[in-house]
Amino acid sequence: MDMIDTSKSKKLIGVFDSGIGGLTVLKEITRLLPTENTVYLGDTARVPYGSKSKETVERYAVEDAKFLVRHNIKLLVTACNTASAYAIARLENEFDIPVIGVIKPGAMAAVAATRVNRVGIIGTEGTIKSSAYCTAIKFINPAVSTFVQACPLFVPLVEEGWAEDEIAAIIAARYLEDLKKSGIDTLVLGCTHYPLLKKTISAIMGDGVMLVDSAASTAVEVKRILSDQGLLNNGDGGEVVRKFFVTDSPERFYVVGRRFFGEGLNQAELAFLE
Amino acid sequence: MDMIDTSKSKKLIGVFDSGIGGLTVLKEITRLLPTENTVYLGDTARVPYGSKSKETVERYAVEDAKFLVRHNIKLLVTACNTASAYAIARLENEFDIPVIGVIKPGAMAAVAATRVNRVGIIGTEGTIKSSAYCTAIKFINPAVSTFVQACPLFVPLVEEGWAEDEIAAIIAARYLEDLKKSGIDTLVLGCTHYPLLKKTISAIMGDGVMLVDSAASTAVEVKRILSDQGLLNNGDGGEVVRKFFVTDSPERFYVVGRRFFGEGLNQAELAFLE
Repeated sequence: MDMIDTSKSKKLIGVFDSGIGGLTVLKEITRLLPTENTVYLGDTARVPYGSKSKETVERYAVEDAKFLVRHNIKLLVTACNTASAYAIARLENEFDIPVIGVIKPGAMAAVAATRVNRVGIIGTEGTIKSSAYCTAIKFINPAVSTFVQACPLFVPLVEEGWAEDEIAAIIAARYLEDLKKSGIDTLVLGCTHYPLLKKTISAIMGDGVMLVDSAASTAVEVKRILSDQGLLNNGDGGEVVRKFFVTDSPERFYVVGRRFFGEGLNQAELAFLE
Repeated sequence: MDMIDTSKSKKLIGVFDSGIGGLTVLKEITRLLPTENTVYLGDTARVPYGSKSKETVERYAVEDAKFLVRHNIKLLVTACNTASAYAIARLENEFDIPVIGVIKPGAMAAVAATRVNRVGIIGTEGTIKSSAYCTAIKFINPAVSTFVQACPLFVPLVEEGWAEDEIAAIIAARYLEDLKKSGIDTLVLGCTHYPLLKKTISAIMGDGVMLVDSAASTAVEVKRILSDQGLLNNGDGGEVVRKFFVTDSPERFYVVGRRFFGEGLNQAELAFLE
């Protein structure tokens, strides 16, 4: 009989996203906590989540989480903004491990950044419709005013590889027109694809507007919770586990994923959720 | 016990698509065959198919078809170009009713239209990658040369409602740059969303290029097959059945669907395929 290591801290951190974008969140987690074992799931067969209903996104999020829970995880990260906006409460109810979304960390980062108490949020249709960022920001500091804009074309633009193209600049200018006039000094990039548009968005919004994304602050939140619960894995010098699963096209994930994760991305295996 | 009409011709024509676009095909079918009963399924929970793998699109197409077959259909129409490109052979194997895709009718229309034997095809990544239109066109007339271009941003552009916007014009100009130089006189709009971009595409390609889509010729093919098999329903003056199902957001389908189908679109019911 094999010896099974039952130490809780050796268990994996599970991270899921509707597709590839959540790798930016995983990247920050592995940077801050390099000795933690991780398993990532990208639901590339049903991507995107951002244009779908709350009911459907909730159902998908639960299926994604169930898959990761079967990999013996100690903590679940919802790297997808839309799934975080719609499904966190449901996930917290269904699973008895800590669940972290990207909305609360992003909201905290935005409230910390603004000097004029005016924060803009851009995201998918679902994320904006849910008002999740506005609710979280108001909860942290009711004095902060929020201004929102859904940008449905940003994800396909990034996927097309046109993030720094003049076409991206024209589309971004259209979407950001009202936000530019709103007097915000902080803009939340409320979708994991948007950090790849930073240069384009920044050129439009100007130096006076700080761009905030959730990845780094989500990693900090992961560390805090693991530490609070005595679950941090400080490593034993052995190899760190980095598993990747997708529900469609592992080859494409490997190629496009490097844009988001950089070196260190392993080949993904195909996952069947249904 | 109710009297059940077992007459084969009274059975429904089943039409499926990855989402809303297939309504353009259904519209042509109902225009040509107004007394036929129809059932439509839009897989809006897993849309789009165009960026996904052959294996996944095949699996989805079979699930879509199984759902329609449960509604007692006499003929199956794959209104989605990507599903037609990847899954027709599989569907023909799995089901014992006639299966019609949009590729062959579109290819026939293009071959009939070209005077210089040079045809362009635009479509999703999947449709272009499959070479299905090129294969079909070469099969009909080997003398015809084909020129292809995937246009991944066209569907999100139409869904955003920007089909006739200056942004659409800029994106279309980029995608069509090489096709414009290729000497084609016929361009296949190889995706059900693209007819909504006709004005924009036509302005770039010029009057010398005929735009062909599959909807009308697919309807003609449906009529031919039903007629050949003695399955045409000439109606008995009773009410015609028009059922609509989607896998996500029936409300959104009703609103956006009217852009594709016009009046006569009924409320859709939610369908569960898995």
